[in-house]
Amino acid sequence: MHEALASYIKQDIDITEEELGRILSCFRPLSVRKQEVLLNRGQVNRQINFVTKGCLRIFFIDEKGEEATRYLAFENHFATALVSFISQEPSMEYVQALEDSEVLYIEKPDFERLLETVRSWEKFYRHYLESAYTTNTNRLMSFITMDAQERYRLLLEKNPEVVLRLSNRIVANYLNISQETLSRLKSRI
Amino acid sequence: MHEALASYIKQDIDITEEELGRILSCFRPLSVRKQEVLLNRGQVNRQINFVTKGCLRIFFIDEKGEEATRYLAFENHFATALVSFISQEPSMEYVQALEDSEVLYIEKPDFERLLETVRSWEKFYRHYLESAYTTNTNRLMSFITMDAQERYRLLLEKNPEVVLRLSNRIVANYLNISQETLSRLKSRI
Repeated sequence: MHEALASYIKQDIDITEEELGRILSCFRPLSVRKQEVLLNRGQVNRQINFVTKGCLRIFFIDEKGEEATRYLAFENHFATALVSFISQEPSMEYVQALEDSEVLYIEKPDFERLLETVRSWEKFYRHYLESAYTTNTNRLMSFITMDAQERYRLLLEKNPEVVLRLSNRIVANYLNISQETLSRLKSRI
Repeated sequence: MHEALASYIKQDIDITEEELGRILSCFRPLSVRKQEVLLNRGQVNRQINFVTKGCLRIFFIDEKGEEATRYLAFENHFATALVSFISQEPSMEYVQALEDSEVLYIEKPDFERLLETVRSWEKFYRHYLESAYTTNTNRLMSFITMDAQERYRLLLEKNPEVVLRLSNRIVANYLNISQETLSRLKSRI
């Protein structure tokens, strides 16, 4: 499991084997079953997760009491309720497994210690934040600047696994459209 | 002008006077008139701006061809089309002055050089990214989890200057409601 994370880190930054070893030793494995919730709303998120198998979903509850999916992460991606991790205040978001999944996670104190002691880890986290910021801002803009069909096409182009592996309910929820609209879009494209 | 930026940085991180001097020497002053556009859609954003007087607005154009305001920054705040600054690809966003404004800006090459040579600047930028991520994610969630009245109350509580200093057109646009709805909310609260 740690090999996938090691490759991911080495692709992003220049790092010595000694530093990489110190980083990897802070990540612990966790198996979660399909539908299992790793973080509930109101809990403080103390960990960052790297998915090595399966899929994690991050969602919150909208004003009508319905789920709104913010982020989906398959193998070789991080998935974290990052606002709560940063502030250490109760999370608005849920983290849930959509398939039987294997995760490597690092806890906040270890994470902070690495930031202070491993220079390249600070750079890695900076890139992580830049990527998370870009993903979220582009997603916000896509809701305002694109219609449902354009959003669906973009998803097929950038992240086809979402459509191939997940249920229509989740795909529709991620696109913020009804399942009926999704069926119509699928039959058209 | 540089004193305000110096205070802002010193509040956030521990820093020597020598490092602070190196950082401040990279920021240059710029005066912009009300309504002036600092960055157009399609341009690559090469600078980060710190407002010392006035107000900057970041907005983009929605699918109906109308402006959608993402962020408003008054004195002592940074305001940047950050996605384009990170990627160095053409911006989807506009940056515009809403009042006659004074800005300190740093250009990308100087910014990158500081990241490599001043350790505390990397920490400062990390905090900047964490804050930008949190602001954007909370804003995305507020649109999905709150109605117009709750969003207006939150704005009055967290950032009353927006309502006190800016036109109803901009305030309504920032809240993503009509000016009529804003007038109704104002008369009720």
